[in-house]
Amino acid sequence: MKKIEKIRIIPLGGLNEIGKNLTLVECGKDIIALDCGMSFPDDDMPGIDYVIPDMQYIVKNKDRFRAIFITHGHEDHIGAIPYLLKQINVPIYGTKMTLGIIYNKLKEFGLENTAELIEVPAGATVELDCLDVEFIHVNHSIADAVAIALHTPRGVILDMGDFKIDSTPIQGDMIDLARLGELGKEGVTCLLMESTNVERPGYAMSEEKVHGSLENIFRKASEQRIIVATFASNVHRVQSIIDTASKFGRKVAVSGRSMITVLEVASQLGYMNIPENVLIDIDMVNVLPPEKVVIITTGSQGEPMSALYRMAYSDHKVVEINNHDLVIISATAIPGNEKMVNKVVNELYRSGAEVVNDAISEVHVSGHACQEELKQIFALTKPKYFIPVHGEYRHLKKHSRLAMSMGIPENNIIVGDIGDIIEITDEKIEIVGTVPAGRILVDGLGVGDVGNIVLRDRMHLSQDGLIIAVAIVDDETRYLTTEPEIISRGFVYTKENEELYNALKQITEDTVLKEANRGHSADWEYSAKTALKDTLTKYVYEQTKRKPMILPVIKTIY
Amino acid sequence: MKKIEKIRIIPLGGLNEIGKNLTLVECGKDIIALDCGMSFPDDDMPGIDYVIPDMQYIVKNKDRFRAIFITHGHEDHIGAIPYLLKQINVPIYGTKMTLGIIYNKLKEFGLENTAELIEVPAGATVELDCLDVEFIHVNHSIADAVAIALHTPRGVILDMGDFKIDSTPIQGDMIDLARLGELGKEGVTCLLMESTNVERPGYAMSEEKVHGSLENIFRKASEQRIIVATFASNVHRVQSIIDTASKFGRKVAVSGRSMITVLEVASQLGYMNIPENVLIDIDMVNVLPPEKVVIITTGSQGEPMSALYRMAYSDHKVVEINNHDLVIISATAIPGNEKMVNKVVNELYRSGAEVVNDAISEVHVSGHACQEELKQIFALTKPKYFIPVHGEYRHLKKHSRLAMSMGIPENNIIVGDIGDIIEITDEKIEIVGTVPAGRILVDGLGVGDVGNIVLRDRMHLSQDGLIIAVAIVDDETRYLTTEPEIISRGFVYTKENEELYNALKQITEDTVLKEANRGHSADWEYSAKTALKDTLTKYVYEQTKRKPMILPVIKTIY
Repeated sequence: MKKIEKIRIIPLGGLNEIGKNLTLVECGKDIIALDCGMSFPDDDMPGIDYVIPDMQYIVKNKDRFRAIFITHGHEDHIGAIPYLLKQINVPIYGTKMTLGIIYNKLKEFGLENTAELIEVPAGATVELDCLDVEFIHVNHSIADAVAIALHTPRGVILDMGDFKIDSTPIQGDMIDLARLGELGKEGVTCLLMESTNVERPGYAMSEEKVHGSLENIFRKASEQRIIVATFASNVHRVQSIIDTASKFGRKVAVSGRSMITVLEVASQLGYMNIPENVLIDIDMVNVLPPEKVVIITTGSQGEPMSALYRMAYSDHKVVEINNHDLVIISATAIPGNEKMVNKVVNELYRSGAEVVNDAISEVHVSGHACQEELKQIFALTKPKYFIPVHGEYRHLKKHSRLAMSMGIPENNIIVGDIGDIIEITDEKIEIVGTVPAGRILVDGLGVGDVGNIVLRDRMHLSQDGLIIAVAIVDDETRYLTTEPEIISRGFVYTKENEELYNALKQITEDTVLKEANRGHSADWEYSAKTALKDTLTKYVYEQTKRKPMILPVIKTIY
Repeated sequence: MKKIEKIRIIPLGGLNEIGKNLTLVECGKDIIALDCGMSFPDDDMPGIDYVIPDMQYIVKNKDRFRAIFITHGHEDHIGAIPYLLKQINVPIYGTKMTLGIIYNKLKEFGLENTAELIEVPAGATVELDCLDVEFIHVNHSIADAVAIALHTPRGVILDMGDFKIDSTPIQGDMIDLARLGELGKEGVTCLLMESTNVERPGYAMSEEKVHGSLENIFRKASEQRIIVATFASNVHRVQSIIDTASKFGRKVAVSGRSMITVLEVASQLGYMNIPENVLIDIDMVNVLPPEKVVIITTGSQGEPMSALYRMAYSDHKVVEINNHDLVIISATAIPGNEKMVNKVVNELYRSGAEVVNDAISEVHVSGHACQEELKQIFALTKPKYFIPVHGEYRHLKKHSRLAMSMGIPENNIIVGDIGDIIEITDEKIEIVGTVPAGRILVDGLGVGDVGNIVLRDRMHLSQDGLIIAVAIVDDETRYLTTEPEIISRGFVYTKENEELYNALKQITEDTVLKEANRGHSADWEYSAKTALKDTLTKYVYEQTKRKPMILPVIKTIY
């Protein structure tokens, strides 16, 4: 290995959570990315589909950019790959399952043939020029997840990715604590660790717990049809459901596009083991008696138009909910989705179904490490420096305190923000500067063309709608050629409010005429628009206490 | 008492929760209302301020409408009073504290002098023609709350209001279980009971628990300034905070308009006992050392522009958050507010503050009865019939099951919806019909003028904005008098997207010309608008995968 004085770590992604989605590591001249994901938009970003990290720093330094290493196949770790690949083509390293999911995603963008996907099994190491990249098996709510250890001239940089410690996983092994312990003995220079569950004491429960709960529920529900909603990507959970169904002599049908896709990918790649003659087509569910059927479905977040949503609102082409149905929601509502989930649950109850969720029974466990697990990783890896990542600001602060309680000195901990250049030398860790960073909004085909003004206008329009006032002026006579027109949307039906409607027309006429005859300046239209906007805004507010957007359209006819 | 064959109960209010806000009881010719509140709008009601029950049934039957009885002073029980009083003036009965809050509300609407407010202490009974109305003391998160027992010719109808069983309240007595038990012995015909916490096992904790937690936190925080955010209306909580501050030799300042108002009302009416020389003006907090100050503030729900929000975002005129601050959020985030609260907490941490909330310490308890408390009321009052109220559909269903487990037969339980006429005779309880019921949206001064189409337009506008295409046609030449104009808001900056902008202009010109020359029918403008809307919608979607609202403005000049 070369002599490199310093290593730089640059968290580049995350919306409310910092150090998520995308982190760069610079070693000498080389730059690599750890993950390349996206976030879902906030309430104050109406109409936005996704939020991706600003990647201009990568593009500007593309000569130095070597590769992307992916820890696992969740959207917040892979979702921005197509957007980066469109600008710069570099190899993508991941485990088999992760690459399977990425391949499907790239197909949507027509990039599946140009991308270079390189499979790395957990336990293997990729040798680059300045550093070696080792994949270490971890447990998480998706199969084939890894932590990544970077062996650099300044020692080991360990990024735990998303993980938990599950000593009884449904499939595969427990997280490779032995290897993490070895690294600890050899010496870990810097640990990056997720902070999602830092506020939760104890341990995340094992996936086996869910399996046990499912068995109990299936046993009791011997006369009901069972519908289970969960995350499509949680293949171990889906496996659990299929195994349990099979054990109780039930057939399994699948509904929801993403669920079908994941089932295909996972079984093709050998990550699922589906017993013969268990799967049936969704169209068959009404042929069999209810107690012989399990339906696995998407929609655990109450997403409108998801399969479960359509079932709840009697809009599913096959499944009609009735009082023989037991619906298991095997997931937790992601913050912000609680109300949507509640609405779906209420609708299911209205149709007569019984609903079980994780508030009532242990039908879900978190995929993220809680306090005791985090502490175990600190104790095993004994890092010199620590960077809490993947959390809101308060999580990072609390994680840094947890690290201090585990003996890491405060000066050796960096709570950074996106774009910070965190530099590691033998002597210290510190923020030495910043690179351009931010959130790029994706709306339809547009990437980054929706900015704050557009969002502000959308918010404004959503609150009180708009009024368009149209006036056409004859240049010669300085009179209106026809009576003004008032159009409104999202305000009130002005046509039903004849008085208001007429008043707005009158104000438009008066204001425009006054401005048109005030003096024959070339830009009179501009000042007339301003005057009309102000007058209408004031009048409408006085009359209704509302502030719709006012758009004056004034045209001169020559 | 007269001979009355049947009593009718009509739940008239509630948005997601049924049987909230407003319930009517009809006894012979008389109609009374229990509570008259409002709900806060859902996410799919942009721009809406409040939602009130449809009260046309009351107005239509105003000759029979006798009075409004209020259980307690929360908005969801009093907020619609001004809207009803504007249409029909009847006496309002309530306890002293409840009427104090109502009076303040009526002042905002200029109705304080016309309204007839009649004070009824807990334990007293109001005699009407057909029935007697008894107020029974209960514990809740606001002072002076009551349950209401209606003594009717068909026996006692008991509406528990919002309540919990607190044997160690901060002030006043425990809920009057003795009286409830007496009623049970005499015989309760029908019980209406809230369902908010029916999913929570055990008991709601006592307010005393919070007091203890506050003392512990104050003791440890001996070098910090303490800021406590809570609901203004929870006067016992505020009293607790003031008492604790006083005990530890701290002065108390108050920030937030509603907090100041409630403090005034509650202390004037004798519901608070503020030690001398404890309260200071908010402007004084920077004069005293941090460890001698407590600030009580609004904003426990993360509401934008609340006092706590302004503190967090460095926008408060006096209080600047720093690393000597300990912020206690003595409240739970109401579903839907979690993200807003999280944002405020993150900002507080960024400014260096430490934040304690009910996830970390017992600084809040629910004001609503949990399973064991509900069961206790069933056991004490032994109702013949039961109507679960004040809950989402699934809560009502679960509450009806709880009632069955307490021995009430399924046929004696009604899970209704708003507008249902629930009729009680000696033989049975059943839904015999419906009255007009629904949700009236209040937006600014407008009550009910915003309907589904307006809301749908607002949602549409918020997702993708709008494009206005303006074309003016000369009637004689059938040509455009000037080039078309394209205006957009909340879409993208069309001006920055010159190519798209020019294409839209060209399409507008082509389409309008074609339609204008297709034949000289009188309504050509209408068909031209339709054609232009379709063509632009299609083109914009192809180019951007977005669906902004398209508003064509086509005018003919004669």
